[in-house]
Amino acid sequence: MSTNKLVKPSKTKLSVAASPAFERVGFLGLGIMGSAMAGNLMKAGFEVHGFDPTTKARQRFKSAGGHVSKDAAELVRSVDVIITSLPSPDALIETANVLARAGRKGLLVIETSTLDIKDKDAARDVMAKKGVTLLDCPLSGTGAQAARKDLTVYASGPAADIRRLVPVFEGFSKAHFDLGPFGNGMKMKLMANLLVAIHNVSTAEALLLGQRWGIKPSTAVKVLSDGAGGSRMLQVRGPMMENEGWKEVTMKISVWQKDMKLIAQALADAQVPAPLFAATIPLYNAAMGMGHESNDTAAVFDVLEKMSSISNKVAGKKTALRKR
Amino acid sequence: MSTNKLVKPSKTKLSVAASPAFERVGFLGLGIMGSAMAGNLMKAGFEVHGFDPTTKARQRFKSAGGHVSKDAAELVRSVDVIITSLPSPDALIETANVLARAGRKGLLVIETSTLDIKDKDAARDVMAKKGVTLLDCPLSGTGAQAARKDLTVYASGPAADIRRLVPVFEGFSKAHFDLGPFGNGMKMKLMANLLVAIHNVSTAEALLLGQRWGIKPSTAVKVLSDGAGGSRMLQVRGPMMENEGWKEVTMKISVWQKDMKLIAQALADAQVPAPLFAATIPLYNAAMGMGHESNDTAAVFDVLEKMSSISNKVAGKKTALRKR
Amino acid sequence: MSTNKLVKPSKTKLSVAASPAFERVGFLGLGIMGSAMAGNLMKAGFEVHGFDPTTKARQRFKSAGGHVSKDAAELVRSVDVIITSLPSPDALIETANVLARAGRKGLLVIETSTLDIKDKDAARDVMAKKGVTLLDCPLSGTGAQAARKDLTVYASGPAADIRRLVPVFEGFSKAHFDLGPFGNGMKMKLMANLLVAIHNVSTAEALLLGQRWGIKPSTAVKVLSDGAGGSRMLQVRGPMMENEGWKEVTMKISVWQKDMKLIAQALADAQVPAPLFAATIPLYNAAMGMGHESNDTAAVFDVLEKMSSISNKVAGKKTALRKR
Amino acid sequence: MSTNKLVKPSKTKLSVAASPAFERVGFLGLGIMGSAMAGNLMKAGFEVHGFDPTTKARQRFKSAGGHVSKDAAELVRSVDVIITSLPSPDALIETANVLARAGRKGLLVIETSTLDIKDKDAARDVMAKKGVTLLDCPLSGTGAQAARKDLTVYASGPAADIRRLVPVFEGFSKAHFDLGPFGNGMKMKLMANLLVAIHNVSTAEALLLGQRWGIKPSTAVKVLSDGAGGSRMLQVRGPMMENEGWKEVTMKISVWQKDMKLIAQALADAQVPAPLFAATIPLYNAAMGMGHESNDTAAVFDVLEKMSSISNKVAGKKTALRKR
Repeated sequence: MSTNKLVKPSKTKLSVAASPAFERVGFLGLGIMGSAMAGNLMKAGFEVHGFDPTTKARQRFKSAGGHVSKDAAELVRSVDVIITSLPSPDALIETANVLARAGRKGLLVIETSTLDIKDKDAARDVMAKKGVTLLDCPLSGTGAQAARKDLTVYASGPAADIRRLVPVFEGFSKAHFDLGPFGNGMKMKLMANLLVAIHNVSTAEALLLGQRWGIKPSTAVKVLSDGAGGSRMLQVRGPMMENEGWKEVTMKISVWQKDMKLIAQALADAQVPAPLFAATIPLYNAAMGMGHESNDTAAVFDVLEKMSSISNKVAGKKTALRKR
Repeated sequence: MSTNKLVKPSKTKLSVAASPAFERVGFLGLGIMGSAMAGNLMKAGFEVHGFDPTTKARQRFKSAGGHVSKDAAELVRSVDVIITSLPSPDALIETANVLARAGRKGLLVIETSTLDIKDKDAARDVMAKKGVTLLDCPLSGTGAQAARKDLTVYASGPAADIRRLVPVFEGFSKAHFDLGPFGNGMKMKLMANLLVAIHNVSTAEALLLGQRWGIKPSTAVKVLSDGAGGSRMLQVRGPMMENEGWKEVTMKISVWQKDMKLIAQALADAQVPAPLFAATIPLYNAAMGMGHESNDTAAVFDVLEKMSSISNKVAGKKTALRKR
Repeated sequence: MSTNKLVKPSKTKLSVAASPAFERVGFLGLGIMGSAMAGNLMKAGFEVHGFDPTTKARQRFKSAGGHVSKDAAELVRSVDVIITSLPSPDALIETANVLARAGRKGLLVIETSTLDIKDKDAARDVMAKKGVTLLDCPLSGTGAQAARKDLTVYASGPAADIRRLVPVFEGFSKAHFDLGPFGNGMKMKLMANLLVAIHNVSTAEALLLGQRWGIKPSTAVKVLSDGAGGSRMLQVRGPMMENEGWKEVTMKISVWQKDMKLIAQALADAQVPAPLFAATIPLYNAAMGMGHESNDTAAVFDVLEKMSSISNKVAGKKTALRKR
Repeated sequence: MSTNKLVKPSKTKLSVAASPAFERVGFLGLGIMGSAMAGNLMKAGFEVHGFDPTTKARQRFKSAGGHVSKDAAELVRSVDVIITSLPSPDALIETANVLARAGRKGLLVIETSTLDIKDKDAARDVMAKKGVTLLDCPLSGTGAQAARKDLTVYASGPAADIRRLVPVFEGFSKAHFDLGPFGNGMKMKLMANLLVAIHNVSTAEALLLGQRWGIKPSTAVKVLSDGAGGSRMLQVRGPMMENEGWKEVTMKISVWQKDMKLIAQALADAQVPAPLFAATIPLYNAAMGMGHESNDTAAVFDVLEKMSSISNKVAGKKTALRKR
């Protein structure tokens, strides 16, 4: 089995000097992620152009010092490299068509969205026919992290192009990895998300057990984080599991359902058994049914709590546990 | 619901000066954990006595500078405080009877084993009748961590006794928490172990998915550890999931099965649904069936691999995935 | 919540006499299911026409006494009602377009395939514009059952049309249910398939436990079938779980994966938690990975066996169990 | 691997004529099961004696025509064979000691309780030393079924003794199987219960999906029972899943938790992975937590419903599903 031998968390600008530098970066999609990255690139000295279909996003971008293009075609003419941050496969295909039609040979496009690899493949093919190169570069990190440049880039595609883009990556992220052939970025992202899906629920299980024993979630997070059971999710989502902390949204359950579907499909395609990931599916479905669609995924705690707790007691009976 | 309000990761010796200092510490059980802790206490200046039923353990202890007692009764007469590190509930009950019979009022016993709270309760009651105080103080950390003093103590029992024991805790651990009433130590330990049970398997799922895609486990561990999917298990067990790393044992599967049973019983008693923990049970059972009983729990990777892989192909057919 | 109040396993031809009788029935799709149903309708006295893109299917149909149409358009002109049995959503949409173009107002189409409700809805809408009525009528039963008229029809759509079609249903099935509005047929079919997905695996779990204890699967099936643990799957798939019985295919694992996806999507859309269904997903994925894609779904037994058995022993060690 | 070759659902009294007939049968334990079996044996012409520690049970037995013994020792002197139906391992061990002390060589004891095989082994050994033979013969069927002689006996132990007991089995059951060596009865019973644990929950999953789609549970049970998804649990427990049918108890959740523990332990001991059984554990734990301990196990439907439904809506928001 061939394996990826190229992993270079390159923090030094090696041969970059030899390549023509990118000075102007364009954004298609100026939502939470896009605008945060754009801001950091401006701070790093890049001239940043951008377009978004919503007026509000364009105004925010302009106030922040960005150059608003009137459409994607104009954007292409103004920049050396484009970063896309898109909400759906349809948006990606449409973008691919627009960029292909713009006919700018040699243009590089950094695609950072979390979308099906098949859709990214299709987009790449459309553009490749017109000499535009798409790189699959999903990001690890939330909107809040993007704002403080605390992102990691899972770059994949032609090695030479990734190397040329290092200064751009460094303008909006704390680290980047060259993960090899196009699509490997999304693969790593799906692996990360599989872990997130599970660790979010494992956190809820442990904290609920503690709560039933009279141990507060915040206490448990403090004690457990540094030990063998520690995880990033325990630290980040654990504190959101008391006092309805899930109302402060870092990842909406309804949006997360799309990610869940991508992971499930990837496991089926790769013929990999993932029993724990599978066991999380009913809990996110239940959270939707319970009305948490606009809350944070930390709300799975509420699902476990409600399915087993005194507030749902079917009769006046108390269980032995309650009396302790 | 009453909650634990006392969590003091006290790193300062507050009122300790006022209490009579413990100078001589005794060990019952000089296995990997016991002997490692004893060694660090000696380095910290304590006079350490100990007893273990196996000759080899006693000799190792003596070579390391310990005072070997000829039995538990003699040990009691030689020390101010005793630390127990025991393999089974029967060993604990036997120890409780011996220490109760020794009739040394005011003796403090730090019980560090991972055992059923009901058994610890019984042991405490036996000793309490004779004026001996048992504290439930399980440890977070492996034998290797114990050797480099990288342990955390989950202390529970009378607050005043825990306070007096701070210098002893500091002699063999990097941190300790006063978690409140007797038994809370084991509760926190069970919560930690529930997370360990899950994160060990989630690591295997993510790394297997990556491997099928041609991404090496070591690459994935490097890239994922720092992100949202990161966990202690990913860092520690992840690297053990390639090249049969499970043959270097940090936790034997056969021993782990006892911990699994304790967690399952705790969830049933507390009436808590833990779907992910439940989903790990079949994998550890399967690892036993596959002959991994003496290997590390990281061998769950092998279970997932074997249940779905080309080495078990029922016919000569190749799947599309393999050809990619 | 409004519930379906109409369930009439009508076995009597009530008001059918008043309606114009259907004498000529057409088939689009003459695969295993289609040709078996066509055969029974011929025996029941109907004049049966049909079309299938594959030559072999058309010849078999002709030999059996059917009238082969040269295409779907010709078929429409020859019959009063059409039964579709199709392999994919694309085939359904294509068929819907052809039948809509044929412009035969009042034509009734009995759609028996297992496909996404959304696709059936789309097909219905296309035809409705041209006065053709689609009924969603999936079947319960395998090809072998279809041949001996041992099918159940889950009919859904306009009640009056279902009533008129009773004689046709009776010509190829043993029972039919009017389940209410269009789409309810597929809903009931998905509920049935959810149970099949689970009971196939539960059978494997029970039989493997028995086998490890020295109880043969065939013995267990005999003893358990009549008791509280009995199920249709235990009776039908249980015997296929020894001696590699999964090589006689009643439902291919690769085809079943499509059904699994439909159920998973339905649960997500309806926001229903189904933990047992979720727990079956990894086993079918694993069966694919193990090379069982062309074997029967009973091969999940092989997955459970291989993931936990002596044939995969990692070392020469024997477990205690083996020695008993 | 040696397998059980003896399965004889013997409905004919073969060589029984040659053996000395049993005319007097004794019962230890006259609860719901014991008294129902005793009644049928009386009807079949046996002289039935019995003892139970509770006054009420003895009176009911006397009214039904039974001969009340003043204790177990007296019972032994009055009968040829004893049937035990006991609530706990402790009751079994106590009974074994009493029967061993009674010193009646050649006495046969039919043990029908659902208890750990290890406990039954211990009881057998105690009695064997005094010439008393214990047979492990759990029953398939509820109290209601016992009353109408609708039981199946899973007999295990010495083949000759089982053969001699055929007339007794026929006096209180509809069928019996000789399953081979002592303990195989319990093994088959555990396999049956594993299936029951799963099919009860699978029924709840399917019916909840239907209910969300507006299909009533009773409708679904009617349509699905005869098809590929059919099971005994669907037929028996399905109808108990609407209108709080779980309040009519056929198996209490709190009692069922003991059976769950026996199955879990058996799977661990036999090193068998059973992912679906494992996935049921959280649901029964949750049912306990929700206060269903005295309700029927059909209450798992309520767990799935409450964890995902509008009655638990966290806000005034409606989900898309609700509007359809």
